[in-house]
Amino acid sequence: MIYPSAEERMELAITLAGNNIKNNGGPFGAAIFEQYSGRLVAPGINLVLQSNCSVVHAEIVAIMLAQQRVANFDLGAEGLPDYELVSTTEPCAMCLGAIPWSGIKSLVCGARDEDARSIGFDEGDKPDDWPQKLQSRTISVTRDILRDKAKAVLQQYIDAGGIIYNGRLQPTP
Amino acid sequence: MIYPSAEERMELAITLAGNNIKNNGGPFGAAIFEQYSGRLVAPGINLVLQSNCSVVHAEIVAIMLAQQRVANFDLGAEGLPDYELVSTTEPCAMCLGAIPWSGIKSLVCGARDEDARSIGFDEGDKPDDWPQKLQSRTISVTRDILRDKAKAVLQQYIDAGGIIYNGRLQPTP
Repeated sequence: MIYPSAEERMELAITLAGNNIKNNGGPFGAAIFEQYSGRLVAPGINLVLQSNCSVVHAEIVAIMLAQQRVANFDLGAEGLPDYELVSTTEPCAMCLGAIPWSGIKSLVCGARDEDARSIGFDEGDKPDDWPQKLQSRTISVTRDILRDKAKAVLQQYIDAGGIIYNGRLQPTP
Repeated sequence: MIYPSAEERMELAITLAGNNIKNNGGPFGAAIFEQYSGRLVAPGINLVLQSNCSVVHAEIVAIMLAQQRVANFDLGAEGLPDYELVSTTEPCAMCLGAIPWSGIKSLVCGARDEDARSIGFDEGDKPDDWPQKLQSRTISVTRDILRDKAKAVLQQYIDAGGIIYNGRLQPTP
């Protein structure tokens, strides 16, 4: 499948997030594409609740699947096309740390970090200038693609009574 | 198996790292224990090279296995004992970000971040005060347990001609 534009790629990630809510998962979707051809390489959904595993955020799942598909732990390896990670919400501290190791060349985000925080999700301790830090590693960052639609999926999760698990459950106050 | 002291727990993680080098893996080991009883819950080794997956650092593997074992994505959930993650080298930015989501209550490290950097491994963009940041999330941090021995495993990897892959291969200059 070919997804030519950033918006079409984000639409897919948002659809994955919405479907995941229906399957009792977290409201986050992602996908990895060949950056220039737009070919879909791997989808990702947040599988924390379904898998009993705090690690499997949507971005992590997409990275793991893409690396299996190309049989390389480095999506930036010589001979491979450039890859782009599209995520419905800006990455948490863990996913942000995973991005440089993955070899992707481009990150495209929908909802902002603060959109996730505003409904109670913890995004972790990220450097304020994280987009610049990725860019200094020659990973491009594009923000706010279909932000309102990506935010709406977060709200949909809350409205459906989804729990805020933050990777882990919140201690009761 | 019971590992009463921090040193005994670190010895196990160092042994895992050493064995992993012999199996063509990266020089990093980890393990999760019940913090107070010292019972081993899950080992972890860096499986990046063997699995074609940049995500599976030793700490991540230990967290994933421990959560499967207790069938909970939150090792800090009510009714569970406190869990401790022991790692031969201080966590990279990704693993650091994964720790608060995992629910562990204690982190014990061997080699320092700069010991890994000094042989060429990239640890990512971490806040300088990362131990304080974990502690402010009520996760205790203990450093320098068998640091020299943990450093020696890193050196052993280099001496054996191990590649510095940094999650991803370094671009050739």
